Amino acid sequence: MEQNRFMSPEMKEETGRRIEALQRLMKDSAYGEPSALLIGSNANLFYASGRFFRGYVYVPAQGEAIYFLIRPTVFGEAPNIRYIRKPEMIGDLLNEMNLKLPEAIGLEEDELSYSDITRLRKCFPESKVVNVSALLRRGRMVKTPYEIAEMKKDGLHQAAVYHKIPGLYKPDMTDLEFQIEIEHELRLEGCLGYIRTAGNLMEINMGSVVNGNNADAPSPYDFSMGGAGVDPSLPVGADGSIMHNGTTVMVDMNGSFNGYQTDMTRVWSIGEIPPLAMKAHECSRRILRELEQSVRPGMEICELYKRSIAIVEEEGLEKYFMGHRQQAGFIGHGVGIELNEQPPITGRNRQQVLENMTLAIEPKFVIPGVGAVGVENTYVVRKEGLECITPFPEEIENLL
Amino acid sequence: MEQNRFMSPEMKEETGRRIEALQRLMKDSAYGEPSALLIGSNANLFYASGRFFRGYVYVPAQGEAIYFLIRPTVFGEAPNIRYIRKPEMIGDLLNEMNLKLPEAIGLEEDELSYSDITRLRKCFPESKVVNVSALLRRGRMVKTPYEIAEMKKDGLHQAAVYHKIPGLYKPDMTDLEFQIEIEHELRLEGCLGYIRTAGNLMEINMGSVVNGNNADAPSPYDFSMGGAGVDPSLPVGADGSIMHNGTTVMVDMNGSFNGYQTDMTRVWSIGEIPPLAMKAHECSRRILRELEQSVRPGMEICELYKRSIAIVEEEGLEKYFMGHRQQAGFIGHGVGIELNEQPPITGRNRQQVLENMTLAIEPKFVIPGVGAVGVENTYVVRKEGLECITPFPEEIENLL
Repeated sequence: MEQNRFMSPEMKEETGRRIEALQRLMKDSAYGEPSALLIGSNANLFYASGRFFRGYVYVPAQGEAIYFLIRPTVFGEAPNIRYIRKPEMIGDLLNEMNLKLPEAIGLEEDELSYSDITRLRKCFPESKVVNVSALLRRGRMVKTPYEIAEMKKDGLHQAAVYHKIPGLYKPDMTDLEFQIEIEHELRLEGCLGYIRTAGNLMEINMGSVVNGNNADAPSPYDFSMGGAGVDPSLPVGADGSIMHNGTTVMVDMNGSFNGYQTDMTRVWSIGEIPPLAMKAHECSRRILRELEQSVRPGMEICELYKRSIAIVEEEGLEKYFMGHRQQAGFIGHGVGIELNEQPPITGRNRQQVLENMTLAIEPKFVIPGVGAVGVENTYVVRKEGLECITPFPEEIENLL
Repeated sequence: MEQNRFMSPEMKEETGRRIEALQRLMKDSAYGEPSALLIGSNANLFYASGRFFRGYVYVPAQGEAIYFLIRPTVFGEAPNIRYIRKPEMIGDLLNEMNLKLPEAIGLEEDELSYSDITRLRKCFPESKVVNVSALLRRGRMVKTPYEIAEMKKDGLHQAAVYHKIPGLYKPDMTDLEFQIEIEHELRLEGCLGYIRTAGNLMEINMGSVVNGNNADAPSPYDFSMGGAGVDPSLPVGADGSIMHNGTTVMVDMNGSFNGYQTDMTRVWSIGEIPPLAMKAHECSRRILRELEQSVRPGMEICELYKRSIAIVEEEGLEKYFMGHRQQAGFIGHGVGIELNEQPPITGRNRQQVLENMTLAIEPKFVIPGVGAVGVENTYVVRKEGLECITPFPEEIENLL
């Protein structure tokens, strides 16, 4: 059974490449030069192994990673797999394998709890501790060809479902009923039904469908458009209102089919919408075309933000941009294993655009009384510009 | 708009009761006697406010809680609401409100990241720091009448959907197709589509449907029955196999409708199943009847486990109990805002059963070649025994 094999030969090769990328970053003084990493957060375990398990991945400065598995315990014997009951066993096992204990151990201080890190620190009493959350975010930010291929599959699946969206609409439907039918089609297409996010502050179900003024409900999360949701315990997305004539409905739903995900937003209208909404939607598309043409590896991330803002200001649409009652301070973000990866595309981010980054770019507007407009695509940064991997028509189609 | 009001009068009264319960625990030396709590994790923010927001709740030793809001910023002015951009502002604001800075500040070291706690500690440089994760878990473990009423609504909604399950089955369906149709009905019934879990190690979409031998796929998570899932990035639930004649299908799906949730499992069969499976299912029901009758406040939690094991051994079913290839070491758990709350019902837990705890009890068996059997109900602990709040027939109905 496949479920009894920890890694296929293909995945062993692929994770080997990722581990090597991390090892190169470990030599970079910007990341504190840890002599080994001990990875224990879900997204990073997946990155380093191609699967989820409970346990740790130990990445030495050179050579193969060692996988310490707590659960499940069914993956047989292999030179780089050890079964443990608790992290306190790791030190002795490294000794047994004739591996020197690290001078500086890298731990994920932004992801693991204070209690977990305190416990792991005690497992390496002689080692200096380095926070390697940023190193791992940096490693995952640039995708391998395998990862890009996985994300391209996500984009095609997501687009296939979006093609069905007009057929799901029925007059006098609520936004929530519409969202539920889209979720159903996504699941039938193979969507895993879960959105992995970074940080513990973002909770979301299958994504967000926002109609009319609900697009302007201020979100507690760092979402571009929140929506009030139907319950204060999960204030995101559809609020259960009937979708009235003259409004828009923005669909920003789950693109996770394989541990990776694409992020893609399209807008439909219920009947005719005012010229201001059409103008703002076209402004969003103009921004995307401009960035697709002009973005190159080496550019500063904040340039993307500044060029977008310049276009918005030229069109006099500032007060609707990225929200109206509450405006978000970004126009996009990295995406991959988690929905909100590095880099955030803000006006202050001076990180460089790098080849094979995957970016979700989402210049959006909220037009009071109408709803949200704008387009979001996921792109791969290539030498010659941005490659869109969420291919789907961008025009606002009237559902009536 | 309701979304502009931070708390209804009813919720103010309700959260007042919860805050007072926390304040009583703050005087208990078992919890380190913090002089104030600063709450920042999602589940505890919801407990202390009745909604999700980004920010903190400050609970002094006596008097009302103070709500420090980062996002959203739309809840108007109130004596106990302050808008902040960052936690470093909290100390000065407390001073302005003539509140003495706490001698011992309680932080959630099991929930917040090492980096977050390190930052919050610096906001209270003169204060001793106490880990109050256990205090908050203990506070939430015993439910208020309001919380129990919310959970009773969950149980009725969940049961209403389970009644539709036989009508969703079609011959030669895969377990995944079956799960997707159940999810769809849950969402139409008002299920929020998200399962809040404690700890960062449990990832789940809408729950778990396991058929046949997939019930025996060892889970990386602390689930009683995992299922392999369809992708190694989310190894839980249906694996996409066709549900064959002579197997069982166990449905353990999302019961979250209002920020609280019930946990409920029922089993159906595809055709006839062997006597051993029927016997194990009846054993599960016998355990539940025994516990419903005998459990009382004041009893040790481990007693529930021991009585269950005694019945299992009497029937000679040990090797199938709580899994087969990999067995779980519990027969249930607290449930409420999070799926896996305190207390875990294990053989070692010497905590006392308390009135108004809500417990999910799930004695389950895996029969090789057949699948999982057993029942899970959510109960409220009453003076006179356990009150079931997931009312639904427990017999195995044949779907063919």
